[in-house]
Amino acid sequence: MTAILSASIVGTSILGTTRGSVGGSTFYATNPASGGTLEPTFHSASVAELDRATALAATAFPVYSRLSGKQRGAFLREIAAQLEAIAAEIIPRAVAESGLPQGRIQGELARTCNQLRFFAGIAEEGSWVDARIDLADAARQPAAKPDLRSMLRPLGPVAVFCASNFPLAFSVAGGDTASALAAGCPVLVNAHYSHPGAAEFAGLAIQRAAQECGLPEGVFSLLFSSEQEIGQRLVAHPVVCAVGFTGSRAGGLALQAIAATRAVPIPFYAEMSSVNPVFVLPGALAERGAQIAAGLHGSITLGAGQFCTNPGLLMLDSSPDADTLVQSLAGKMAATAPATMLNASIHAAYSKSVAARDDDAGVMTVATAAAASPAGCAASAALFAVSATQFLAQPHLQDEVFGPSSLVVRYEAASTSSELLHLVESLQGNLTATVHATDADLKSHADFLAMLEGKVGRIVFNGYPTGVEVCQAMVHGGPFPATSDSRSSSVGGRAIERFARPVCWQDAPQVALLEELRSENTLGIMRLVDGVRTRE
Amino acid sequence: MTAILSASIVGTSILGTTRGSVGGSTFYATNPASGGTLEPTFHSASVAELDRATALAATAFPVYSRLSGKQRGAFLREIAAQLEAIAAEIIPRAVAESGLPQGRIQGELARTCNQLRFFAGIAEEGSWVDARIDLADAARQPAAKPDLRSMLRPLGPVAVFCASNFPLAFSVAGGDTASALAAGCPVLVNAHYSHPGAAEFAGLAIQRAAQECGLPEGVFSLLFSSEQEIGQRLVAHPVVCAVGFTGSRAGGLALQAIAATRAVPIPFYAEMSSVNPVFVLPGALAERGAQIAAGLHGSITLGAGQFCTNPGLLMLDSSPDADTLVQSLAGKMAATAPATMLNASIHAAYSKSVAARDDDAGVMTVATAAAASPAGCAASAALFAVSATQFLAQPHLQDEVFGPSSLVVRYEAASTSSELLHLVESLQGNLTATVHATDADLKSHADFLAMLEGKVGRIVFNGYPTGVEVCQAMVHGGPFPATSDSRSSSVGGRAIERFARPVCWQDAPQVALLEELRSENTLGIMRLVDGVRTRE
Repeated sequence: MTAILSASIVGTSILGTTRGSVGGSTFYATNPASGGTLEPTFHSASVAELDRATALAATAFPVYSRLSGKQRGAFLREIAAQLEAIAAEIIPRAVAESGLPQGRIQGELARTCNQLRFFAGIAEEGSWVDARIDLADAARQPAAKPDLRSMLRPLGPVAVFCASNFPLAFSVAGGDTASALAAGCPVLVNAHYSHPGAAEFAGLAIQRAAQECGLPEGVFSLLFSSEQEIGQRLVAHPVVCAVGFTGSRAGGLALQAIAATRAVPIPFYAEMSSVNPVFVLPGALAERGAQIAAGLHGSITLGAGQFCTNPGLLMLDSSPDADTLVQSLAGKMAATAPATMLNASIHAAYSKSVAARDDDAGVMTVATAAAASPAGCAASAALFAVSATQFLAQPHLQDEVFGPSSLVVRYEAASTSSELLHLVESLQGNLTATVHATDADLKSHADFLAMLEGKVGRIVFNGYPTGVEVCQAMVHGGPFPATSDSRSSSVGGRAIERFARPVCWQDAPQVALLEELRSENTLGIMRLVDGVRTRE
Repeated sequence: MTAILSASIVGTSILGTTRGSVGGSTFYATNPASGGTLEPTFHSASVAELDRATALAATAFPVYSRLSGKQRGAFLREIAAQLEAIAAEIIPRAVAESGLPQGRIQGELARTCNQLRFFAGIAEEGSWVDARIDLADAARQPAAKPDLRSMLRPLGPVAVFCASNFPLAFSVAGGDTASALAAGCPVLVNAHYSHPGAAEFAGLAIQRAAQECGLPEGVFSLLFSSEQEIGQRLVAHPVVCAVGFTGSRAGGLALQAIAATRAVPIPFYAEMSSVNPVFVLPGALAERGAQIAAGLHGSITLGAGQFCTNPGLLMLDSSPDADTLVQSLAGKMAATAPATMLNASIHAAYSKSVAARDDDAGVMTVATAAAASPAGCAASAALFAVSATQFLAQPHLQDEVFGPSSLVVRYEAASTSSELLHLVESLQGNLTATVHATDADLKSHADFLAMLEGKVGRIVFNGYPTGVEVCQAMVHGGPFPATSDSRSSSVGGRAIERFARPVCWQDAPQVALLEELRSENTLGIMRLVDGVRTRE
C-alpha cells in the first residue's frame, strides 16, 4: 500500500482517475455547531460529467465483475487501509461537517474499515454466490437430464446515496459501497451536501485504492451536486442497474418512483424511516423499570437522536409501574443537555415536528429539556405521551420525528391482550421493535410476539435498538415504509445479495464456466450439488 | 389420504372450505380444437367473495406460517396425491380446454406432482431459510457484542395468476403455488379464463388436501373471473403480500404498476416474454449444421411454439454453412403440420404477428407451412430472415411472437467479432440464450460469452432452450422485460425465496426463537454460525 500523502480536498467530483470541472453551481459545507461555512467551494457535477462517470462504470463492469473474490477482497482491504492512512484529515473534517463528537467519528471510521474488511472476507471466502450444481443423467426417463449450474452474478453499476447521519459508515465508503463492490459492481456515489469534504476524502481513498490494485478506473466515481438533479439523473441513467439509498421517506419515495418507471426498472433499496417501537411488558416493568428508563434515555438521546433505530415509540400499559418508568424517563429527558444536530435543515424539521405535537389530539408534553441557543443547530430532548385510543385514531403519530424525542403510548393494563395486539396490528413497517420481558411475560404474550415479527426486520429483547452490529445475522431492513424492499438488509452479510442475480449455465463445457461452478471445487466454497450442501 | 371420489366441477370459486355464488357475470371454456363450448358455466367471483377469500388468508397466515417445514411438506405431498387421484378427470378436461395432446398433459400432470414433491423436500429439509447465528461476546471492546439470529420468514398471503400455456404445471397447483405454500404463505389463485375446468379440478384437490392435513381453510382459495377486474383487485388488496404471474408483457406490466403504486408496494414476480436467441458459431455450423437444424425445428414447433423458452431468434453468420442450415430448417418448417393453439385469442395474435412481418423493412419470409383450416385455432409454422443491420434498426423485431415461428438474423462472417457483439449488446433481457459451439469457438468468443451472461437467466450450450428442468440449479428468470425482477427464478429451488424476507432476533431467550434458530440444531439444517457453515 502507498499511503495518500498530505491528502487535500479541492471540491470537484471524482470521475475514475480524473476530476470534475469547476463550472456549474457551487455550494459550501457548514459547521452545524458554529454555523460557519467551511472551505473549499464544492462544484456540482455537470450532466456531461455524470455521463462520463457512468460510461467509465459501464466499461469497468465486464472487467471488474469477472475478478476473483480474492481480488475484490484485496481492493476492499486496500480502501480500508487508505482510509486509515488519512484518519488525521478525514476525522476532523467529518466532525466539523456533522457536529458529531470526535469519539463518535473515530468509532465510525473504525466501523467503516471493519465493514470493508467484513465484506472483503465474504468475497474472499466465496460461498455467498450460492453455487448450485445439478449433474446430468443421460439415462433418465422419459427424457435425459441436462447438467445445470447456477450462481449469483453482479447486476452492474450501482448508484449509492450518502446518508446524512453516517458521514463515514453509510456514505462514500460505507455499507452500500462495500457490499456492491464485494458483489462485483462498480459504484457511482452521490455525495450528501451536508458533508462533502468527508465525502471527497473518502472518495480519494477509494480512487487511490483502485489505482493501487490496478483496477479499471470506472470502478468508482463520486459526484457532487448542490441540488437533487444529479441524483435523479443517476437513478434514471440506463447504465445504472441498482440503487442503495439511506435518507428521508420523501427522498426515498421520489427516487423509487424514478427507478420503477424507467424503460428498464431496476432494484431500488431505500432505508427510509422508522419509529422503532419499544414494548415493556408487566414483569419487566416490575422487575427493572428504573433500569429500563435509564437505558431508554441513553438510546433516545444518543447522537442527538439521529439514528435510524432511535426508539420513537414507547408502548406501556397504564399500571403504576409504568407511571414510575415514565416519571423517571421524564426527569432524565428534562435534564438532557442540548446536542448539535447534523445540519440546519434537520434541526429545523425537528423543531417543527416537536412544536407540532401540541396540535395532535390528546398528546401531552411530558418533558422538555432546556432550550438551546436559538442561533445554532442544538436540539432539546422532548418526551410526549398519548393514550392508545388517540394513537390509533391518528396514524400520522407513527411518522418519524428525527431527533432526541419519543412518544409514550399508554394502553389499558386490564385489556392487555386486545389493546396491545390492536396497537401492534396498527403499526407500519419498522426497522426494529424492542421487547422488555421476563420469561413469564414471553409465555403469556406468544400471539403478541408472532404478530410483531410481521412488522419489523429485527426484534431486540431486553436491550435497546440503537447499535447495529455488522455481522452475518444482522437484518437492518423491514417492511415498507421502513424500507422500500423488505427482502433485503442494508447492514450485514445479506447486504451483498442485493446487488446480484442468479444466472444458470446448461450443459456448459468446463472452459465456459466461472471457477465457482467448475466440477473441481478449487475454491473450496460451499455448494449445493445434486441437492446436497458440500465443499467437495 | 382420502381420495376425492367422483370429483366434479360446478363452476364457482373456491373460498376456503366453501364455494362462491352463482351471481355475477358468467363465461364458458372453449375447446380450441373444435371451437365448441364446454360445460359447466363458470361464475365470476364478486368483490365480496374476494374480500372473504383474502380475510380467510389473513386469518390462516399466522397459523400456517408457523407450521414446521415437515408439516408444510406433508401438505404439498397430499396435494400431489390428490391430483394423481383425479388424473382421470383432470387430464381430459385440460386436453379439451387447451388443445394440447394427451401425452403432453399426462407429462404435465407428472411434472406438477414432481414439482410439489420437490418443494415439499425443500421445506422438509429446511436449510432454505438461510439461518444465521452470531453469538454474543460480553467481553468485546469497546462494546459488548449481542447475540443475533436471523432467518427467512414468509411474507404473507400470495396471489398467483395462472398461465395460459401450462394449464397444470404453472396454474392452480403449479410452481408459484407450490413455492409459496412451501415458504409458508397462503395462496389466492386467479384462474385463467382459458382453462377454468382444469383450474377447478386442481383447486378441489388442494382444498381436499388442506382438509386432510387439518390446515386453516384460508390457506388456499381459487377465484374465477370473466374479466380482469378480480385479478387487478387481488393485486391491489392490502392483505396480499406478493404476486406470482406468468403471461403476456402487457398483462404483466399492468399488474406490476398496480403492485408498485399501492399504499404498501409489494414484490411482484412476472415472467412476461422472451425471444430466446440461439447463436450457432462457425465451428458448430461446420461440424453439425444439419443436426442443429433438426433440433431447432423440434424446439420451435414443440407444443405449437407455445413455450416461454421458444427459440424466436436465430443468430447466424453469412457463411455457406449457415445458408445450408437455414435451407434445411426452412424445409422442415414448410413441412410442419398445423397445430392447435391454446385459444382463439392467442391464435389471432399469432396470425396477426406473422402477417405483420411483411411490413418490417428487410424481413423476408423463408418458409411458411401449409395453411390450416381458417375455422379452427391451428397455427402454421413460419420462418423469417433479416440482416443484422435491419434487425438492429428495428427494435420491435425483438418482440415475442408467441407460436411456431422464428426469425433468422444474419451477420457478416467477416466481421464476426464486432457485428456479433453489437447484436448481443442490442438484446433486451431474455429468459435464455443458446450457444452452439465447439471448444475452439468458445475460446475465440470469450467476450461474446461474457456479454451474453448479462442478457439472460440461463445459457444453454449445444442444446435447445425448451425444456425447463425443475431442480435446485435451474434459473427461469432473466433481466427485464423477460421478467419483472431478475433477482428471482420462477422454476426450481430458488423460487421459494421469492416469498420470504429475513427477520432477526437480538438477545432472544430460547423460548422466543423458532426451532431453526435455537442453539441446539434439532432440525439438523445447514446454518451460518459465527461465519461458519455448519449442521452442528
